[in-house]
Amino acid sequence: MSSDLPLPAYADIEAAAQRIEAATIRTPLLENPRVNDRLGGRLLIKAEPLQRTGSFKFRGAYNFISQLSPDQRRAGIVAWSSGNHAQGVAEAARLLGTPATIVMPIDAPAIKVANTRASGAHVVTYDRIKDDREAIARGLAEREGRTAIPPYDHPWIIAGQGTIGPEIVDQAQSAGASLDAVIAPCSGGGLSSGIATAVKAISPGTQCFAAEPAGFDDLARSLATGTIQRNERLVGSFCDALLAPCPGNYTFALARKNLDGSLVATDDEVAGAMELAFREFKLVVEPGGAVGLACVLNGALPIQGRTVCVVCSGGNVDGEVFRAALATAARRTA
Amino acid sequence: MSSDLPLPAYADIEAAAQRIEAATIRTPLLENPRVNDRLGGRLLIKAEPLQRTGSFKFRGAYNFISQLSPDQRRAGIVAWSSGNHAQGVAEAARLLGTPATIVMPIDAPAIKVANTRASGAHVVTYDRIKDDREAIARGLAEREGRTAIPPYDHPWIIAGQGTIGPEIVDQAQSAGASLDAVIAPCSGGGLSSGIATAVKAISPGTQCFAAEPAGFDDLARSLATGTIQRNERLVGSFCDALLAPCPGNYTFALARKNLDGSLVATDDEVAGAMELAFREFKLVVEPGGAVGLACVLNGALPIQGRTVCVVCSGGNVDGEVFRAALATAARRTA
Repeated sequence: MSSDLPLPAYADIEAAAQRIEAATIRTPLLENPRVNDRLGGRLLIKAEPLQRTGSFKFRGAYNFISQLSPDQRRAGIVAWSSGNHAQGVAEAARLLGTPATIVMPIDAPAIKVANTRASGAHVVTYDRIKDDREAIARGLAEREGRTAIPPYDHPWIIAGQGTIGPEIVDQAQSAGASLDAVIAPCSGGGLSSGIATAVKAISPGTQCFAAEPAGFDDLARSLATGTIQRNERLVGSFCDALLAPCPGNYTFALARKNLDGSLVATDDEVAGAMELAFREFKLVVEPGGAVGLACVLNGALPIQGRTVCVVCSGGNVDGEVFRAALATAARRTA
Repeated sequence: MSSDLPLPAYADIEAAAQRIEAATIRTPLLENPRVNDRLGGRLLIKAEPLQRTGSFKFRGAYNFISQLSPDQRRAGIVAWSSGNHAQGVAEAARLLGTPATIVMPIDAPAIKVANTRASGAHVVTYDRIKDDREAIARGLAEREGRTAIPPYDHPWIIAGQGTIGPEIVDQAQSAGASLDAVIAPCSGGGLSSGIATAVKAISPGTQCFAAEPAGFDDLARSLATGTIQRNERLVGSFCDALLAPCPGNYTFALARKNLDGSLVATDDEVAGAMELAFREFKLVVEPGGAVGLACVLNGALPIQGRTVCVVCSGGNVDGEVFRAALATAARRTA
């Protein structure tokens, strides 16, 4: 179904913004003068952990399901996800009265599985290494007449996630800031390509970057080679939300057009970013949600004398993992 | 100087709101449908950890210093505080170009001392048990011609903290909620009495409560007896920000007039509230900032079938303490 649709443009993101406005939270843009002093630039944090379901994924999910026909909504939807898309889809489905089945990896964070169930979704688990989650989900969709909601490679999903772009530009303007660069975490690329598509349309002088975990830099390598590259491993990053095997067709096409590059941070740098978000912004950020911030703190994206907006994309992290990240960061600075 | 001023009224809070508007953050009112379902009521969280300096104290400090004469501002200010008032005063002084000296307990959280210094203030330490911090500060003020800024018992401070009240009522209205009750943490009572004064003026049907740590319930006992009661101990609560020895004269007079009571929670219940704020609201709340939430979760303030706004008043907590709180909460629910 998605193959017929053209690449999403800024007008699609504007339409998505109207569609989701009443159901979503206009998350705040946080700033801390002390941090700015230390960095020698202006750091703005778009706080998507405060979004409904604790991550940006609710935006795309709600934009998608609200475009289904009454018949499609009655028949239900199915999605596959390591956790945040699962929660976003489950909650959007609940609000829009659609039965949801979600295919999740057996090692997904407990908090993400519990929350998906709490929104009333039926959860089916799979093994990240042995099973093909998309095949399981598409099989279910076919057998039960459900609509499959892909996690990133669909124009409706990308347009939904892209709604963060105009919010950032508008909020930065209200704060008297002119944006030199925006950076957002990247797994399959729905968030980063959606935001870049919006930002380049409204503020063409602003650079747009994706951020990936070291060793899972499929987008960086895809942009470098001009063809879609896969990650060698499918497990093993601290950033559980950023383990998509490769960019999608839609997201890669948009990334080539609108992204200025994809930057990389290590797991330890991500833990340091989570600690900074905790200490200076009082915000809980999950590992995958902090990789953009890590790319500013490790110098991959220079901030000195500039204004940089970092999207912190989610905050669904188990207490044990969060405690370990704070402990890691404390050891590094001790 | 403060003894000449009348009790602050709603008009003073309105004036304070105008005075501080450009310098403060209108912190968001957070809500989570899943939490509401579980509680059987509507829980709104006023997220003051996202305030400048990480707590509500900036409001009162900025309202106070901005009313000083040019001569007084040049001569500088002095304040005594376990940490959040210190940071609020230091940052407000920096913004308004006033030299600041802050008297802090030697066992104040490291993060609070470091942040106070980072705002350019001179820090003088004291011993909570042996020394009289107010005497040290007032001595300094006299010797150096500085203005002393009390942590809570002054109409300008109370009016500044009270600005949270109209924000809550306005934001609740925007969210389609009619407030049955508001609860705010209480140490000396500036926050809770200020908010209650505003809320009772705008929304007389809304109940207003203070929240105190068990064993440090000086306000609850003062309200019960009709005279100011002191805490037996000055140290030993997990809630480092809530250790004032007794209500102030202004704050107690306002509390008697406008508060419907003061509720109590144990340290373990506070740790549980910090964990809920972490898990469901992605918000870092310090122990003293979470005692109002703890009073909802422990049933002291009933929420079933009602709408309750909880002020989470600050988020300045050391990583080690936060990790310990999450671990305590995990043990309790295991």
